Amino acid sequence: MASLEEKRHTLAHLLAAAVAERYPGAKPTIGPAVDNGFYYDFDFGAGQAPGETELAALTDAMRELLPSWTSMHGTEVSEKDARDRFKDNEYKLELIGDISAKGEKITLYTAGDFTDLCRGGHSETPGHDIKPDSFVLDRVAGAYWRGDENKPQLTRIYGLAFDTKEDLDAYLKQREEAQARDHKKLGKELDLFLIDEKVGRGLPMWTPKGTAIKFALEDFVRSLERKYGYEHVETPYLGGEELYRTSGHLEHYSQNMYAPIDMDGDKFYLRPMACPHHIRMYQRRPWSYKELPVRYAEIADYNRYEKSGELMGMIRVRKFQLTDGHLFVTPEGLKDEFKNVCRMIVEGMKGLGLLDIVSYRFSKRDPNNKEKYYPDDGLWNRAEGLMKEALDELGLAYTEAPDEAAFYGPKLDVQAKNVNGKEDTLFTAQMDFLLPEKFEIEYVDADGQKKRPVMIHRSTIGSLERTFGFLIEHYAGAFPLWMAPVQVMVLPVGQAHAAYADDILKTLRDAGIRAELSADDSLGKRIRAAKLAKVPCFLVVGDAEMEAKTVTVENNRTGDKQTVSLPDFLNPMLERIKERANI
Amino acid sequence: MASLEEKRHTLAHLLAAAVAERYPGAKPTIGPAVDNGFYYDFDFGAGQAPGETELAALTDAMRELLPSWTSMHGTEVSEKDARDRFKDNEYKLELIGDISAKGEKITLYTAGDFTDLCRGGHSETPGHDIKPDSFVLDRVAGAYWRGDENKPQLTRIYGLAFDTKEDLDAYLKQREEAQARDHKKLGKELDLFLIDEKVGRGLPMWTPKGTAIKFALEDFVRSLERKYGYEHVETPYLGGEELYRTSGHLEHYSQNMYAPIDMDGDKFYLRPMACPHHIRMYQRRPWSYKELPVRYAEIADYNRYEKSGELMGMIRVRKFQLTDGHLFVTPEGLKDEFKNVCRMIVEGMKGLGLLDIVSYRFSKRDPNNKEKYYPDDGLWNRAEGLMKEALDELGLAYTEAPDEAAFYGPKLDVQAKNVNGKEDTLFTAQMDFLLPEKFEIEYVDADGQKKRPVMIHRSTIGSLERTFGFLIEHYAGAFPLWMAPVQVMVLPVGQAHAAYADDILKTLRDAGIRAELSADDSLGKRIRAAKLAKVPCFLVVGDAEMEAKTVTVENNRTGDKQTVSLPDFLNPMLERIKERANI
Repeated sequence: MASLEEKRHTLAHLLAAAVAERYPGAKPTIGPAVDNGFYYDFDFGAGQAPGETELAALTDAMRELLPSWTSMHGTEVSEKDARDRFKDNEYKLELIGDISAKGEKITLYTAGDFTDLCRGGHSETPGHDIKPDSFVLDRVAGAYWRGDENKPQLTRIYGLAFDTKEDLDAYLKQREEAQARDHKKLGKELDLFLIDEKVGRGLPMWTPKGTAIKFALEDFVRSLERKYGYEHVETPYLGGEELYRTSGHLEHYSQNMYAPIDMDGDKFYLRPMACPHHIRMYQRRPWSYKELPVRYAEIADYNRYEKSGELMGMIRVRKFQLTDGHLFVTPEGLKDEFKNVCRMIVEGMKGLGLLDIVSYRFSKRDPNNKEKYYPDDGLWNRAEGLMKEALDELGLAYTEAPDEAAFYGPKLDVQAKNVNGKEDTLFTAQMDFLLPEKFEIEYVDADGQKKRPVMIHRSTIGSLERTFGFLIEHYAGAFPLWMAPVQVMVLPVGQAHAAYADDILKTLRDAGIRAELSADDSLGKRIRAAKLAKVPCFLVVGDAEMEAKTVTVENNRTGDKQTVSLPDFLNPMLERIKERANI
Repeated sequence: MASLEEKRHTLAHLLAAAVAERYPGAKPTIGPAVDNGFYYDFDFGAGQAPGETELAALTDAMRELLPSWTSMHGTEVSEKDARDRFKDNEYKLELIGDISAKGEKITLYTAGDFTDLCRGGHSETPGHDIKPDSFVLDRVAGAYWRGDENKPQLTRIYGLAFDTKEDLDAYLKQREEAQARDHKKLGKELDLFLIDEKVGRGLPMWTPKGTAIKFALEDFVRSLERKYGYEHVETPYLGGEELYRTSGHLEHYSQNMYAPIDMDGDKFYLRPMACPHHIRMYQRRPWSYKELPVRYAEIADYNRYEKSGELMGMIRVRKFQLTDGHLFVTPEGLKDEFKNVCRMIVEGMKGLGLLDIVSYRFSKRDPNNKEKYYPDDGLWNRAEGLMKEALDELGLAYTEAPDEAAFYGPKLDVQAKNVNGKEDTLFTAQMDFLLPEKFEIEYVDADGQKKRPVMIHRSTIGSLERTFGFLIEHYAGAFPLWMAPVQVMVLPVGQAHAAYADDILKTLRDAGIRAELSADDSLGKRIRAAKLAKVPCFLVVGDAEMEAKTVTVENNRTGDKQTVSLPDFLNPMLERIKERANI
């Protein structure tokens, strides 16, 4: 019996056969199996390439051919024979040239009436192995020949394929759910952010609703940072050449930086990191050991070079705001402070409701490949040792990842799984021995001697952009009460209740609640709209409510419904918002 | 009797005479009267130029010469005679050449033993007119010959001169007070901000104390904006080329912009203004006339080209944050909305306590020079008419300034006087007919037709940097309670009261008050330090307070002192902070 990968590979051939039958001018190029099925790239030349609407017919054509593919087998041929067979297909000729240049065998595989240049790895009895309802053509995309944008553009047809129809259906369902949660889609539908081509790709703008969430996140971050003893600073997104020369960014990190801007003869860089700014802030005055740790926090502007093709919504952008922080710590205080950092990170993830999707990775030096790392065995051993102790004492579940440390120190990566199950690094907490050396950072110790502090770089909840992207997908746009851009929608039943509804709106807003009033259209339509907008809570006010000076509260998350006085609604509501409760 | 300006001009000669006597190698160049006295530029050549410490002796030398200057008179001479007399002074020779090239008369003025090339305008009897105690040499600075940095560098000696000693003393006193309030000086003393050469000139960093004030200002601005119906947005400090091409900034404003940054083939600019971003935000969806005015506010990052030599503390910087906003208004709604804008500005200035130093300037088109302005007579007349009506109906005192409007519309300038009495524009509110045209901004009117809104650009309290600079100087660092970086200083009398003081500190901080505890050093020294830091309020706790569960409150602004329970202190304090009371 063929493996799933062999079946997928076979289906790529079957697709090419169906295309050859229905689009006689098309030139097949290459077609491999992929994670969820297969694809094949074609040059349709002057002919019309199939669009998404043609895929159903093409799938049917594949299914019609399939029973005739009773067997599939390969034959070794000479380069000349291969060239003769594919003489009109410059792509296959190029591949044949490559294979023979490497001295490898050239094989052709045939099933039904269709023969293709291939290395093998198929089902030997496709008509028997592959269930006709276990695959479907999925979408059409552009692709360059050999991935090179200077080479001809081809048409790539993707298919999904699994062992059974049930597996295919399950995949489609999971994908549909993930797509419904896609932050780019929801961002537009719920009017949370905007990427405008004129403003620039990779430079998202926060709409009023998105900004309300951003401010809620900023408040949360800053209150958490205050609780953990941080001082807030604000530093510019530009830095002079000498700053990034001293830090080593220009030498080691310039591939992620943009070209400098001249300001009256001085060169300035859009900063890729804020550590040098915070170091210069620290260095504005002398420090005693009694004052350490010094902890600076900032929602800091960062700029990182990203290729246009790799930009993605709020997740991969060219300018972002990191909930950033830098700590200057005595070597003796390092373990305790690292524990504090970890406690704060866990509290932050818990506060955002993301504990379920995050995990922790302890990234260490590769003990067999020490040359890659800052050369001080003693420091590394001590730092990794105390990080491990700290993590273990906290009882934090983590995985160890050798050879994933930064050049200048070990780190803890906060990993998050997106709705597709893919894991990404949300942010890190990192020890640093190197920058204190480079900038010659000091404090005066108890013995009156000048000593070097250790730095910890760390984020509170990651970049606001990326974390917002994760939050949108995690909550499918139904944000917890404290984050929700509109927390309460006031719905007067009719025109007669407008004035009463206005009073309620004013009371709510004066109390600091993000409330809106919806008065146009029928009540049913308005309720539907507020539900679509995922507003957590509605207040319906009609004759009875106006009469009794009450409101009817509908909780759009729990479905609860009750009629209470305005203060009886308002006070618990304010309490729940203050506590950052979910609903 | 000579005028003050004539006396000052005469004193410049007297200075040159004293320098000639004491520094024989010095070459005098030019020496005019200025606002507060006079100066003279000298080339001291290989000889030692006088420093600040030599000025007293030089002032004495002037005073000794003065009685011998019984008369001062001029003689016309030939170019040849003049050249002979100044044959060793290339500066005077250059001036002589210039004068004769213009066909003007060459005159020499003599008093005592000293003769100088001069046009005249002196006291004719200096020894009689000028009081020896009415002037004093002030400072030494560098200056380029004819202000050209490619020409030789000279030494400029400044003197202060008034009619009487009393006037001089009054000036010195006023200047001393202004210097004590200088925001650069106080910014450093009170540790409010930092300009670091490595980070970059013109790029101030906000220290923890400065950031506390910045956050208080941001909260104030945003609550005011919410009250006036604004929605907050957040947009990036970069904008694509097309954006600033469409807006006309690249064509008309590029001298104030930095060079573009390439991002994968696209050009991006550090934005000089945020209007185009807010316009694209507006254009993300269609709007009905019923939804207008749409009001977007943002504490927006701006970048403006400034020469290194013109940078000044927080007042003139290269990157700043404007409390920015853009309104999209129907023509019918324009007057009412402009009134709202004015009301908000006045409320903002009042909230900051700056009403006394601000005035309002209504900047209009020059009716005799219409070609300089956006060509639509009807629009201008209507806009200026309704602005005037709005201002008059509000009863706002303003001055009219013809020919001070922007190209694209009339504006209201909020002018502020600094501690030296110099007036500067703090920010503006401006009508704009042009950008709506350029971006083709629309709304759907009651008749179903697409119409063009008018834009208003306006700030709430100006740029945070510049306004902060004014606030520092206005309050001499003794900020109102709600702004103060440290609002309460807790002072335990001795070690025995440390735990009680800690409890108090925690209670205050949990309530959201910015409180610090000062425990090292003697109580007297700690009180002095807190007074120097201009902390508005101290809580002293000793045996009596600990016993009775009270605190002794000292108000550092009013001098009031009273012993109360903690809640009796805390609750009115919170109320006053919430109301943004001064003390």
